[in-house]
Amino acid sequence: MAEVKITKRSEDYSRWYTDVIAAAELADYAPVKGCMIIRPNGYAIWEKMQQALDGMFKETGHQNAYFPLFIPESFLRKEAEHVEGFAPEVAVVTHGGGSKLEEPLVIRPTSETIIWNSYRNWIQSYRDLPLLINQWCNVVRWEMRTRLFLRTAEFLWQEGHTAHATYEEAEEETLRMLGVYRRFAEEFMALPVIEGRKTEKEKFAGADHTYSIEAMMGDAKALQAGTSHHLAQNFAKAFDVTFQTEKGTREYVYATSWGLSTRMIGALIMAHGDDNGIIIPPKLATTQVVVVPISRKPEERQHVMRAVEKFTLAFKTVGIGFKVDDREQYSPGFKFNDWEKRGVPLRIEVGPKDLDKNQVVLARRDNREKTSASQDGLERTVVDMLNAIQKSLYERALEFREKHTYRVDDYGKFPEILDGEGGFIWSHWCGSGECEERVKDETKATIRNIPRESPAEEGKCIKCGSRSERRVIFARAY
Amino acid sequence: MAEVKITKRSEDYSRWYTDVIAAAELADYAPVKGCMIIRPNGYAIWEKMQQALDGMFKETGHQNAYFPLFIPESFLRKEAEHVEGFAPEVAVVTHGGGSKLEEPLVIRPTSETIIWNSYRNWIQSYRDLPLLINQWCNVVRWEMRTRLFLRTAEFLWQEGHTAHATYEEAEEETLRMLGVYRRFAEEFMALPVIEGRKTEKEKFAGADHTYSIEAMMGDAKALQAGTSHHLAQNFAKAFDVTFQTEKGTREYVYATSWGLSTRMIGALIMAHGDDNGIIIPPKLATTQVVVVPISRKPEERQHVMRAVEKFTLAFKTVGIGFKVDDREQYSPGFKFNDWEKRGVPLRIEVGPKDLDKNQVVLARRDNREKTSASQDGLERTVVDMLNAIQKSLYERALEFREKHTYRVDDYGKFPEILDGEGGFIWSHWCGSGECEERVKDETKATIRNIPRESPAEEGKCIKCGSRSERRVIFARAY
Repeated sequence: MAEVKITKRSEDYSRWYTDVIAAAELADYAPVKGCMIIRPNGYAIWEKMQQALDGMFKETGHQNAYFPLFIPESFLRKEAEHVEGFAPEVAVVTHGGGSKLEEPLVIRPTSETIIWNSYRNWIQSYRDLPLLINQWCNVVRWEMRTRLFLRTAEFLWQEGHTAHATYEEAEEETLRMLGVYRRFAEEFMALPVIEGRKTEKEKFAGADHTYSIEAMMGDAKALQAGTSHHLAQNFAKAFDVTFQTEKGTREYVYATSWGLSTRMIGALIMAHGDDNGIIIPPKLATTQVVVVPISRKPEERQHVMRAVEKFTLAFKTVGIGFKVDDREQYSPGFKFNDWEKRGVPLRIEVGPKDLDKNQVVLARRDNREKTSASQDGLERTVVDMLNAIQKSLYERALEFREKHTYRVDDYGKFPEILDGEGGFIWSHWCGSGECEERVKDETKATIRNIPRESPAEEGKCIKCGSRSERRVIFARAY
Repeated sequence: MAEVKITKRSEDYSRWYTDVIAAAELADYAPVKGCMIIRPNGYAIWEKMQQALDGMFKETGHQNAYFPLFIPESFLRKEAEHVEGFAPEVAVVTHGGGSKLEEPLVIRPTSETIIWNSYRNWIQSYRDLPLLINQWCNVVRWEMRTRLFLRTAEFLWQEGHTAHATYEEAEEETLRMLGVYRRFAEEFMALPVIEGRKTEKEKFAGADHTYSIEAMMGDAKALQAGTSHHLAQNFAKAFDVTFQTEKGTREYVYATSWGLSTRMIGALIMAHGDDNGIIIPPKLATTQVVVVPISRKPEERQHVMRAVEKFTLAFKTVGIGFKVDDREQYSPGFKFNDWEKRGVPLRIEVGPKDLDKNQVVLARRDNREKTSASQDGLERTVVDMLNAIQKSLYERALEFREKHTYRVDDYGKFPEILDGEGGFIWSHWCGSGECEERVKDETKATIRNIPRESPAEEGKCIKCGSRSERRVIFARAY
């Protein structure tokens, strides 16, 4: 076990991020440029994320399926915007089984094309609609500048692909799944997010329009945490997917797609982590509690372990995920530090003196506060404290976001904010791609989204002064 | 919904298999040759399999991780037998992000090489051992003759990769995981299997030795259902993975790997299916029970649905997976047939006459027996019957295997058995690759494995008459 020293956030945020990942053994760079190895500690977070999301997908009527990794190159070309967006970043298989292939195969960067090619056979009548399918898989987008979890050539994700009879039903689904993502971010990741619509320039290649949830990271930059696309009839037309309506006419099918990826592990690190490492929200922690028994003499040890066995048995009955760290070669201090950098939300210390008082010491990872608690009914105390930690992480992130959110009507203030502490800037925008582009060129800030919760408000575009009807969010982003 | 007529097994077993998959909507061929689309009904079985196996992996101390899809071509060449076995069937990526790659990338056919390259960094001392890791992923092996689930270019699987300090510990792990596969096959798939060691010729490319579990399908052919490999120090030497022993010396690490794939869905179809379609063992069925309410008049319908709601509420409390088929456009007869071909283990029919008697009709999918049962405590009756179905499927498969198992000491009888009803032939074998090869050339039967439960027994090789110490299993296989 090599010791990793974590750079301070204030010193170098980017190195801090890399150090946290190394210290908690979450991921490694792979020998292939841009690819990553997700180590057991990182994958355990992904498994918890999958469980939570998969449950919500099934509650909302979706079924899982699996479509092939390989897409014929010609499929990509069938939707004009789609190929333009994805062709530059695909990996291409040219040889298989020792021979050159007749048609090169693209490794899926996303699966709209291969899935809509199947839907042509699966959808005949309005009775086959809606079709609500999700898949968990790996995708590949060739990236030059990669960062663990945030931007890698191969990543894991889920992609939902649904088919509907009307534009309105597809819009409902698009927003329903955006809502699922929001709930996941807020309830499980303890991450406040802003729902909104992407600009034309930032929408998914092939979509009618795209919604996103946007979160603020610990350096006040934005991170797009999930997207939900209304694809209108674009893919149905490209793959000739029609259905017989109740009236007997034939129409093209309406589509949505929505995805969320292992990028969220990066978001989790940057939203909650501190100078001691990652902090995993209790609802996404496999090990929610680590118990560190403390003893000097063998007979103390026995005594302590008996108490530990007793209260951890109760932990099991209420479903608390815990580990007892009884390694003899390490000191308590080493262990405290070890589990802190792994982000375990709650630590329980218990030694002979605690036993005398029928108590234990609880140390919270989020605010590093220590308190004593009775061993009687400890499982309830722990459950309550885990809930409190989950809540407090959310509130802290929300407070941080509010502190770094600005209403700005003077473009001159952009550099001051963006080059200073950074943040979300709510400003008026006329809706033109030209102004959007200029702001980006001049400040590196992009329009994150047009918030759904933003009230109509007359104003003037921050860039050109033309009429604007509502504020949008400008920020530098990951 | 297109109607699929299922060919009789006795008429054409291979077409029966394809028809069953189409009728139950389990999978489709993909537009890319050799790839498959796993449809929701098929994927639901895989999800249940994953749950069961993943639970057992974690119980035995394994953690999940994720390694990259891409393997540098040079890695494959580092283990001589490994490259010989896999090079002919890999898919190769030559272009990424619009440019030709410096080194071609192989899409993982299995992950020993990329994983052992990482283990070099993860393992320093005996304290880091054992390292017990599993991954769920897709792999690609270019195949010319493909069959849905059984043999496809891309398939889903899990692959375990463990590292140990000694040969003996690695052997223990290899057999432990073979035991997990056996338990999974028998308890969840209701599939009796024979544990044994593969011959040199049939072992994994790069292994010291390989164990397998072998099952008999409905046409008396064999199917290899899972394999567990002792890799000795082969990959540690190829990737220079050493550890410091307790004594302070340095040694190469010992390895195992073990895998089980979506092929098991094919095994499940062929082991239990009948002329009406697939039969899903209750423990792997998401929908364990389908309820078909029967009524002619609206007031009857209300009456029936009230009863259905009452007993299905009780189903929920005991965790029975059920669906109520209240589609109005289809007749009860259509529905019975529809759910039979989807393999739902138990059907409940309930109409006005049943209500008068406070009963329902239970129709078992496995033996198609119908019985009446009281609505009082129906959830217990159903749980018991699901257990009975699970047990009976296992017993039926075991009985079938026993009926088609022969002890043969006269090679002349091979054609009679193999060209007749087929089966497992327990015969003596001298251990030479030459005899093994000849039998294969002459009869198309391979040695499935050298059963672990086979007692030592003096005999003469079925082919050459030389001395033999135990019987092995010959059979034609998928």
